[in-house]
Amino acid sequence: MTGRDSGAPLAPIGNSPVVILVRPQLAENVGSVARAMANGGLFHLRLVAPRDGWPQERAWRSASGADRILEEATVHPDVDDAVADLHHVFATCPRPRHVVKPVLTARGGAAELRAICGRDLRAGILFGPERAGLDTEDMARADALIRYPLNPGFSSLNLAQAVMVMGYEWWVAADDTPPRTLMTNETHVATKGELENFMGHLIRELDACGFLRNLPKRPGMVRNLRHFFQRGEVTEQELRTLHGVVTELALGRRLRGRDERQG
Amino acid sequence: MTGRDSGAPLAPIGNSPVVILVRPQLAENVGSVARAMANGGLFHLRLVAPRDGWPQERAWRSASGADRILEEATVHPDVDDAVADLHHVFATCPRPRHVVKPVLTARGGAAELRAICGRDLRAGILFGPERAGLDTEDMARADALIRYPLNPGFSSLNLAQAVMVMGYEWWVAADDTPPRTLMTNETHVATKGELENFMGHLIRELDACGFLRNLPKRPGMVRNLRHFFQRGEVTEQELRTLHGVVTELALGRRLRGRDERQG
Repeated sequence: MTGRDSGAPLAPIGNSPVVILVRPQLAENVGSVARAMANGGLFHLRLVAPRDGWPQERAWRSASGADRILEEATVHPDVDDAVADLHHVFATCPRPRHVVKPVLTARGGAAELRAICGRDLRAGILFGPERAGLDTEDMARADALIRYPLNPGFSSLNLAQAVMVMGYEWWVAADDTPPRTLMTNETHVATKGELENFMGHLIRELDACGFLRNLPKRPGMVRNLRHFFQRGEVTEQELRTLHGVVTELALGRRLRGRDERQG
Repeated sequence: MTGRDSGAPLAPIGNSPVVILVRPQLAENVGSVARAMANGGLFHLRLVAPRDGWPQERAWRSASGADRILEEATVHPDVDDAVADLHHVFATCPRPRHVVKPVLTARGGAAELRAICGRDLRAGILFGPERAGLDTEDMARADALIRYPLNPGFSSLNLAQAVMVMGYEWWVAADDTPPRTLMTNETHVATKGELENFMGHLIRELDACGFLRNLPKRPGMVRNLRHFFQRGEVTEQELRTLHGVVTELALGRRLRGRDERQG
């Protein structure tokens, strides 16, 4: 299965930052990076001195269909060459040491990248080699470092994971999905009147079957049922199902009662 | 290289959600999931009917040192068994269809998971198999779905990437790193007085060498220099370096001037 959801080939989405892999070692990782970039709506990939040369078939095998990102990738001899046409450069760095440099969270970095790209400036993000990470000379080429808040006892990320987190934050920085919604398909959230209509049906049947015969306890029991049925949003279709459940349970009781009387 | 940063073995951090992999296919992916969990400070792993059985040596090879998560993982015949002792269950689902269910973003889900775990309740997150994802019966076992905002044209995530995003959001939900800070090591951000002291030094030398001899333009030129040197935070140590740069450049000019006069 590829990650592609439509027949249209991958294409840049607006002005998005360039992902720059500095001295990547494994071509499989470059392919996984391309897939993660596609997930996050990133497109532009540059490779600085890839260890095993470029192109490498293994990259295409791990890209899950993000081929166009690999096809459009460019190769550069060093970081200076890879960033020469960019206006802003960020360097991802899990454990920055001995540098005087602004340090951003991934979320803070994504917000700044959105602002920079919104001004039609070109931005890039440096990711270091799998084992050693970026060296101090690479970091000196960056305007700011990006350091992900993660478990300090286990902070070393796989290269594609590092790109995934940044791509995810890049996408989310421009996303306005509410944190919680109710998915209702063809139905809709029930109004209080629709809910009350069901509660009336339920209470009538519970009165009829004797479940609420203890009159001093009746108001509290009805209130508890109301609390339960109001705890989350209920849809109009669910209420129809619940009406059916009550009707059929009550009918079964009546028929059984008749059978028992007849038996 | 392992992802471990200290000699201490991985251990649970507080009350954290259980990651439940439903019918995972590739043991390598289970190992990569363990690594991603460790990155995000998650610890508890449950496997529902792993295709190739369990344990699998290949999982340990891709876990980069997150071995204890694999060692403590439990295997379950079905989702009901895996969630029986949990109070809340979330299901990750890239493209929910035909379900009436609350849908959360990864960030919204992480906030709710933090709230649930903060109440000492046990929570779990279901992740579906690599190819098909969770089926409709699995989703019916969940309180809510979690759907990551990502490029809708390329939204299929590698399993470990899906766990990475959730683990990252889980960690960040309890993290208070400011989005931007200046890393200064042993030095500190310069005060305006320290900066003014340097500006005075610079302007004296620029007056001495004649760079500011155009008196009508002098105030604007000085102001431009001030704007430049104040654009970002400057550290006390950087100001000392800049003092040295100005002193040495001026000294070089004086010596050269003397040489030229002597030559």
